[in-house]
Amino acid sequence: MVFEYIGYLAAFLTTSSFLPQAIMTIKTRDTQSLSLSMYSLFTLGVFCWLVYGISINDKAIIFANSITFLLAASILACKLYNGFSKKE
Amino acid sequence: MVFEYIGYLAAFLTTSSFLPQAIMTIKTRDTQSLSLSMYSLFTLGVFCWLVYGISINDKAIIFANSITFLLAASILACKLYNGFSKKE
Repeated sequence: MVFEYIGYLAAFLTTSSFLPQAIMTIKTRDTQSLSLSMYSLFTLGVFCWLVYGISINDKAIIFANSITFLLAASILACKLYNGFSKKE
Repeated sequence: MVFEYIGYLAAFLTTSSFLPQAIMTIKTRDTQSLSLSMYSLFTLGVFCWLVYGISINDKAIIFANSITFLLAASILACKLYNGFSKKE
């Protein structure tokens, strides 16, 4: 069914979207306009998705959220590093 | 089951996380360290989730992604506005 493919496309887009942000943040180290609250809540949320995926043994949820977790956690780490080293 | 609640918590966290970013971006108008590619892909992805939710008539997917779409689209609009007005 065509709608199933829209679901896969949606999952691909929302997961992969964090890649350019992670690359940009790691390269430039600029996190001034990134919200610490957003990345704290989001990283925790993706971690919960991962736990949920493992608990119901859903490989798609586990796969997508493992990648998103790594990307979001990298961005959060840069933000926290800048915060602690008083660069912001 | 406890895992079901972890799923709800995950959905709540990943959806609501975009609220502090949207508030911060609208308030400060600073989008320097936000990736245009991320917000373009993410907003499109959330729109696809919305279409998918409507197509399978899943109220939870429709509800969560309507909110996320509005928040992500607001952030993207600020980023595009700054880009076009050469503020970045």
